[in-house]
Amino acid sequence: MGSAFTFPLAENGNDVRLWGTWLDDEIIERTRRGNHPKLNRPLHPAVRLYASKEIEPALDGIDVLVVATSSDGFVPVLSHVIPVTPNGIPIVSLTKGFAIIDETVCLLSAAIRQLSNHHSYGAIGGPVKAVELAMHIPSVTVIAAPTEVSDSFAPYVQTPYYTFLRSEDVTGLEVSVALKNVYAIALGICDGIFTETHGDLFHNFPAALFSRSVAEIAAVVHAAGGNVQTAYGLGGIGDLHVTARSGKNREFGMRIGRGARAMSVYNEMLREGKQAEGYLALRAASAWIRYQYPGLYEHLPLFRTLDQIVFGNTTDTKLALMSVLRYPEPEPGALGSQRQKTDP
Amino acid sequence: MGSAFTFPLAENGNDVRLWGTWLDDEIIERTRRGNHPKLNRPLHPAVRLYASKEIEPALDGIDVLVVATSSDGFVPVLSHVIPVTPNGIPIVSLTKGFAIIDETVCLLSAAIRQLSNHHSYGAIGGPVKAVELAMHIPSVTVIAAPTEVSDSFAPYVQTPYYTFLRSEDVTGLEVSVALKNVYAIALGICDGIFTETHGDLFHNFPAALFSRSVAEIAAVVHAAGGNVQTAYGLGGIGDLHVTARSGKNREFGMRIGRGARAMSVYNEMLREGKQAEGYLALRAASAWIRYQYPGLYEHLPLFRTLDQIVFGNTTDTKLALMSVLRYPEPEPGALGSQRQKTDP
Repeated sequence: MGSAFTFPLAENGNDVRLWGTWLDDEIIERTRRGNHPKLNRPLHPAVRLYASKEIEPALDGIDVLVVATSSDGFVPVLSHVIPVTPNGIPIVSLTKGFAIIDETVCLLSAAIRQLSNHHSYGAIGGPVKAVELAMHIPSVTVIAAPTEVSDSFAPYVQTPYYTFLRSEDVTGLEVSVALKNVYAIALGICDGIFTETHGDLFHNFPAALFSRSVAEIAAVVHAAGGNVQTAYGLGGIGDLHVTARSGKNREFGMRIGRGARAMSVYNEMLREGKQAEGYLALRAASAWIRYQYPGLYEHLPLFRTLDQIVFGNTTDTKLALMSVLRYPEPEPGALGSQRQKTDP
Repeated sequence: MGSAFTFPLAENGNDVRLWGTWLDDEIIERTRRGNHPKLNRPLHPAVRLYASKEIEPALDGIDVLVVATSSDGFVPVLSHVIPVTPNGIPIVSLTKGFAIIDETVCLLSAAIRQLSNHHSYGAIGGPVKAVELAMHIPSVTVIAAPTEVSDSFAPYVQTPYYTFLRSEDVTGLEVSVALKNVYAIALGICDGIFTETHGDLFHNFPAALFSRSVAEIAAVVHAAGGNVQTAYGLGGIGDLHVTARSGKNREFGMRIGRGARAMSVYNEMLREGKQAEGYLALRAASAWIRYQYPGLYEHLPLFRTLDQIVFGNTTDTKLALMSVLRYPEPEPGALGSQRQKTDP
């Protein structure tokens, strides 16, 4: 996603540097010689490439730092990068998920606050698949950040095919985009169960699960102190829509729906070079919700069912997912305002 | 849909009578002899079939009347049926759209109030395609009605594969399910524009339009005095999801997206036996919104764009739809509470 994001940035005439972590040196090297191996096309010629060792020249004189690691790379990479990033430079994140600091799960914004007092933080989320952004498919996304960050950042990125909207609800956006990877697994499981027997003729069930997913994301956003409208917007509904239709978390779910065990699928996909981040996000979110918002877990029947399917011992996944449909439609406000126990 | 709805009703041991209007006599006759011609399977053997002339025996001793006409058939059919329906029998509607009475567009509940003072009214909406219901795909839907109606009706219908949830927000559900047919056209147009050039590789754009559609449905529900949560639930998000993925309104949109004129497509599809009700709903909703809720139309950029594409003279549909992405994310509450001018 970091690489795809260089297209609108470079086309807008910005000085764009793409630095790869120690895991990305081969990608940087291959991109120098031709096509970006994941996007299957060369990057914009103005993008300057930096291997992992070249972090200092990459950061020299920057106006903004954009992070696009996997969620489990967020803390390790930023622990390495922040000490050499000039103070006052805003950090904007394309990463979606949770962080773990001192064995405690937290939102990425909370992790940043642990790592630095000298950088403001913004999150980006919305229905944008990297390969489509690189292909210039019309896309819109949201930056949630303090106004001064989004005011200065959005114009760098706005292009005719890529629209950037502003929000101040960092918490709501972070929660929404982390959880959409989780709920995309549920929709993938549904596809896995029915595709072979019903072809493409089973829209009722996934549509109901999609609706339930949004309702539960909104409930968690509300509990975490975000604005439920964020869940009902591009960062929630929009991003879940695109994630559930294709991608690694859907594929992870589909293989489970066809009968495989979750942990085997996760490892099998990793060996194929595909990380299902929703698996990590589900485990993290389950711990985070139960620890920070006691009582909330019980109000999330689809989340609970998915947790049981992936980490428990549910034997009949179809029946388990069907049981979710029987719960009354939730109203996020009806849960009452939850109090967070601690904010690491 | 009326025919598909007989499956859960009959399987629950109810006495189910399926009456066809004067347009349905051939369907009733063919179903008597074998497969239902649209569902491609026989109905449950306990369902009793009535041709249009047999209205009186069909209604004799009923506990509830379920209506499932097309939206433009709602008033003509009920004008015929209500006078022979016993007083006090609740009317529950599977019809989705608007009615026209005295040249004024109104919600179906308002039409019922014009036609009778002796029948309470409930609306059914949610992600349920008829053919999938007949196939027993797990489905969930919502009945919005006064409590006594839904309390007495829902148990008739609840089966292991078909869940029925209760709501009291008749207005919110009616508006949501009428408008989802409209917004499914926009998503169909997007598919029509991109499918041939991009195959299945253009999820960002439709996901953004889906999110925008839900936001606009919520804004109209709010203006009409409904509960926005209804738009964010199974009757809004859920029903739009299933409608946008397949069906006649999507197909109507796809043909427009490939370059055909809307009115020709509508008539062409009618000749093929497929009525795109979203076309009627768009025309009706446009008049209804502008007359009843002055100022609201300007806050619905996707609706306005669609209105221009279908009934105006937009030449570049792709550019027109892309322009919608640039509007800030709406908050339904921010529009203020609108006052309805008249309630026919």
